[in-house]
Amino acid sequence: MKIAERTRFAAPALRAFVERALVAVGVSSTDAALASDVLVASDLRGIESHGVARLERFYVDRIREGVIDPKAVESTVKETPTSLSVDANLGLGHPVALRTMRRTIEKAKASGVGIATVRRSNHFGIAGYYAMMAMESDCIGIASTNAGRLAVPTGGREPMLGTNPFAYALPGENGDSFVLDMATTTVALGKLEIARRLGKPIPEGWAVDKDGHSTTDPEAGILGALLPLGGFGTETGGHKGFGLAVLADMLCGVLGGGVFTPDMPSQRNILDPGIVSNFFMAFRIDNFRDPAEFRRDVSRSLRAFRESAPAPGFDRVYTAGEHEKIRTEEHLRNGIGLDPIVVATLNNVAEKLNIEPLAPLRG
Amino acid sequence: MKIAERTRFAAPALRAFVERALVAVGVSSTDAALASDVLVASDLRGIESHGVARLERFYVDRIREGVIDPKAVESTVKETPTSLSVDANLGLGHPVALRTMRRTIEKAKASGVGIATVRRSNHFGIAGYYAMMAMESDCIGIASTNAGRLAVPTGGREPMLGTNPFAYALPGENGDSFVLDMATTTVALGKLEIARRLGKPIPEGWAVDKDGHSTTDPEAGILGALLPLGGFGTETGGHKGFGLAVLADMLCGVLGGGVFTPDMPSQRNILDPGIVSNFFMAFRIDNFRDPAEFRRDVSRSLRAFRESAPAPGFDRVYTAGEHEKIRTEEHLRNGIGLDPIVVATLNNVAEKLNIEPLAPLRG
Repeated sequence: MKIAERTRFAAPALRAFVERALVAVGVSSTDAALASDVLVASDLRGIESHGVARLERFYVDRIREGVIDPKAVESTVKETPTSLSVDANLGLGHPVALRTMRRTIEKAKASGVGIATVRRSNHFGIAGYYAMMAMESDCIGIASTNAGRLAVPTGGREPMLGTNPFAYALPGENGDSFVLDMATTTVALGKLEIARRLGKPIPEGWAVDKDGHSTTDPEAGILGALLPLGGFGTETGGHKGFGLAVLADMLCGVLGGGVFTPDMPSQRNILDPGIVSNFFMAFRIDNFRDPAEFRRDVSRSLRAFRESAPAPGFDRVYTAGEHEKIRTEEHLRNGIGLDPIVVATLNNVAEKLNIEPLAPLRG
Repeated sequence: MKIAERTRFAAPALRAFVERALVAVGVSSTDAALASDVLVASDLRGIESHGVARLERFYVDRIREGVIDPKAVESTVKETPTSLSVDANLGLGHPVALRTMRRTIEKAKASGVGIATVRRSNHFGIAGYYAMMAMESDCIGIASTNAGRLAVPTGGREPMLGTNPFAYALPGENGDSFVLDMATTTVALGKLEIARRLGKPIPEGWAVDKDGHSTTDPEAGILGALLPLGGFGTETGGHKGFGLAVLADMLCGVLGGGVFTPDMPSQRNILDPGIVSNFFMAFRIDNFRDPAEFRRDVSRSLRAFRESAPAPGFDRVYTAGEHEKIRTEEHLRNGIGLDPIVVATLNNVAEKLNIEPLAPLRG
């Protein structure tokens, strides 16, 4: 199968387009700017599944269908010097997540640590964006979210868990960092869809069929469910990925007072409003060590991994977030290449909202 | 191969024996009692690899060889209302870990959150023990440790990471709980040793040979290295387990100001003193929700998993820590069954320290 040719767009043009679209469906210009920054950051980092590809179906359409309230303002449910519980009131996920992480970092600066939950929200994009915000304040950042059901628990055959990611960000020196942003399933559903398009089998450990049997058929997996990180059963540690997914659901949904398993709806029918909850945390490095020394040691450790002997078939070891950083630099230089399918959805958005369309970079 | 018959011992008798042994090598009776509680808790939970099986080789011998200082008293390096940095001064790992987690919980009670690191310590047993301590104070508990190198990074062939576990404990109602205590490698080395004894191949995703090739030969894996959770390469998510292992090393070793990769020695030569660092955290549930409601919802979610439809070949879904709770109850009723090899090491300890030997339960 021929890979379709991509069109390249400049990040600022993409951001401006996302802002125009969100403002056109009733989002304030402030919130539209925040959401566009998170969405385009995902494309910059090469995580296409969570970027502008979602603009139409996840945000514009849902706002127009009344699932997301574009005018919602979040309310503070409870607050202490180290904690914050927020209700998003069914609003757009990114602005409330971003503002809540800012407040979490302020608490960390004042009290050493800040922990926050957000309930009744919507998809907030990449968890890594929020965790990374902590680094510029010499803090360690953590972010998580629950999500619609797509994955089976270990030993079960009913989809009961979302991809429920965790992100952790620790700063190194000279812009280096350790940014782990991982779904707690082995892969996201998008990888099965790509395998189906290419007519390729999927590896063991990605998915089960609708009866709960491990499968290598992408179509059967798409009709079935994803597997937790560690794969099928307990032999290769599937119960650990399962445990991490439940942990995310409990820190976000249960602690936040929002929706959690078993009430979480299926990812295949996430038109239910406000089902998503988030968890954020930041804490000061200088309560433990001089931040400059900490950053130096983080970088020294990262370098040791990168310079270690590669396994056969690998060019070298890449540390968490390194591929994303390399892609960001490339995308800032040369623009972000978007798949024709994604470009079509963006043109569709421009047409139905009657806004200025997105202009590609001149070759 | 015939499974050798086990001898059963009562938990209090085991604890008393561990105390006698530790006191005989110079540990204070207070510290010996704390360490014995952690070690026997591991056997009660069915985690034999981290219990009294380690008494001789990990603790008694190392104290006698001067690697662990039985008289060491930890010192506080830095302290704030939400943070604590401790230096174990090369002492036994369990008592300092236990006291540090107690202080962390006190900080959580007073300030909402407590975070602590311990450096220059030794193996502290099961991480879950410390995380679980937080639950009785209506807190969520987290514990982690780094450990000697045994595992390769994704894409690498040099062992650079320990089994670096994370433990999380969230209380449910009526003694129910969610306790995830997981190594960030797919399995511990002990599982390869069992496979070798049984002459069985190991699954893909457990280990690589000494050249970094994925292997199903337990002997080659033992001479090689373990793989991170998620297995070989990135296809089944090995980079996620690798990331979690590095995260543990950075939160414990780097943040704690202790030893971290690349300075961490190999697990095969851990006679180096004070190489281990820990990370602890506790935070109050009632800053977010009424603890009784939180506990009720945790249990409701856990029940939903347990009562969901099982996959073919499974009797039902077990949630994190559930097997360990079932085993604890059985071991408290009927005693803890120990392997003849373990019993031999305990008899050996009694003989060389000239202490009262361990008496089995009467059949």
